[in-house]
Amino acid sequence: MGAENSISPFVVKRLPRYYRYLGGLIDKGVTRVSSKELSEIMNVTASQIRQDFNQFGNFGQQGYGYNVQYLYDEVKKILGLVQHYSMIIVGAGNLGQALANYDNFTRRGFVCAAMFDSNAKKVGKKVNGIDIFHSNTLECYLEKNPTDIAVLAIPETQAQLVAQVLYRHNIKAIWNFSNTELEAPEGVCVENVHLMDSLMTLAFNVRKR
Amino acid sequence: MGAENSISPFVVKRLPRYYRYLGGLIDKGVTRVSSKELSEIMNVTASQIRQDFNQFGNFGQQGYGYNVQYLYDEVKKILGLVQHYSMIIVGAGNLGQALANYDNFTRRGFVCAAMFDSNAKKVGKKVNGIDIFHSNTLECYLEKNPTDIAVLAIPETQAQLVAQVLYRHNIKAIWNFSNTELEAPEGVCVENVHLMDSLMTLAFNVRKR
Repeated sequence: MGAENSISPFVVKRLPRYYRYLGGLIDKGVTRVSSKELSEIMNVTASQIRQDFNQFGNFGQQGYGYNVQYLYDEVKKILGLVQHYSMIIVGAGNLGQALANYDNFTRRGFVCAAMFDSNAKKVGKKVNGIDIFHSNTLECYLEKNPTDIAVLAIPETQAQLVAQVLYRHNIKAIWNFSNTELEAPEGVCVENVHLMDSLMTLAFNVRKR
Repeated sequence: MGAENSISPFVVKRLPRYYRYLGGLIDKGVTRVSSKELSEIMNVTASQIRQDFNQFGNFGQQGYGYNVQYLYDEVKKILGLVQHYSMIIVGAGNLGQALANYDNFTRRGFVCAAMFDSNAKKVGKKVNGIDIFHSNTLECYLEKNPTDIAVLAIPETQAQLVAQVLYRHNIKAIWNFSNTELEAPEGVCVENVHLMDSLMTLAFNVRKR
């Protein structure tokens, strides 16, 4: 693989934000942007922006700014959004259903092919066109359907057990909403979403004022 | 206010994680922890941990480690979790309901007092004991019920409009799930949760391997 192997994790965290803002500029018909303008919209320093973009190539010209569409396409490539990812959601509760209904994922190439739940009342229903299967068919499903990403929208008490099943079937990425840190074998990426952390950060910032 | 005014935003982002891990140690009956041990559990360098904790006081003793309960209580105080926050959720769709059902918030002092939705079919129902009111009663509610935090679980097309209503009624904090960056007046804290960013980061990390 190319340059992206050496990109720092901090830059990786910022890439989706760049992608979002550049997409917004394209929607507004903006074709060129300077690091200074981008820094004002994004609330990051201009030198930070130049440093970030320098990490994956030479995109800008001094005094001339960045070509918005080109930069957008490059960030998209680096993020791996030019390919499709097959996805399943384990847990068809409110959160699982909210995620299944989120059409932005599909638009970005994340295609949710199936949902799983242990509640028999939910099995056989559809959410946003996606079938809900019983959790006890998960292994059988994975044997027949190679899957890139599994979303865990289940309670923390079940998360590690389900994760073991996923690892056995060579899932390479877990998007974990289950409020616990998963132990993952080498080669599996886990992205934990800790909503509580975000709310606590907000509380801290409010109190400080 | 005290030391927390000078704490860097990067440390603030890490505080909820410390809080979570320290809570886990207490649950396991651990009373003392060294920065080295903590660094192994948390996957942060020991020197980073010492630096972070030094920012808000002198908690550790060289060669002796940190008192887990004391450190936990201090982080809790700094995060402002010793007080209660009144909260409302705007949007009673799947995501709003998932958040309303999340008992961890209540346990941490975030008390959700009401939900609002523009769908008349939902009005009058309860989620996890919380009443759903019609969105057109939001202003009236805020006049009578001082509220610290508003959660926006509504589509991006409605978010800025609802935010204007909230600002007029002196909401100080918005936890924004609406996939748009809100313009906020001075003095209002906005914490944006961009789920798509997190999924894109995962895609990047998978592809890299």
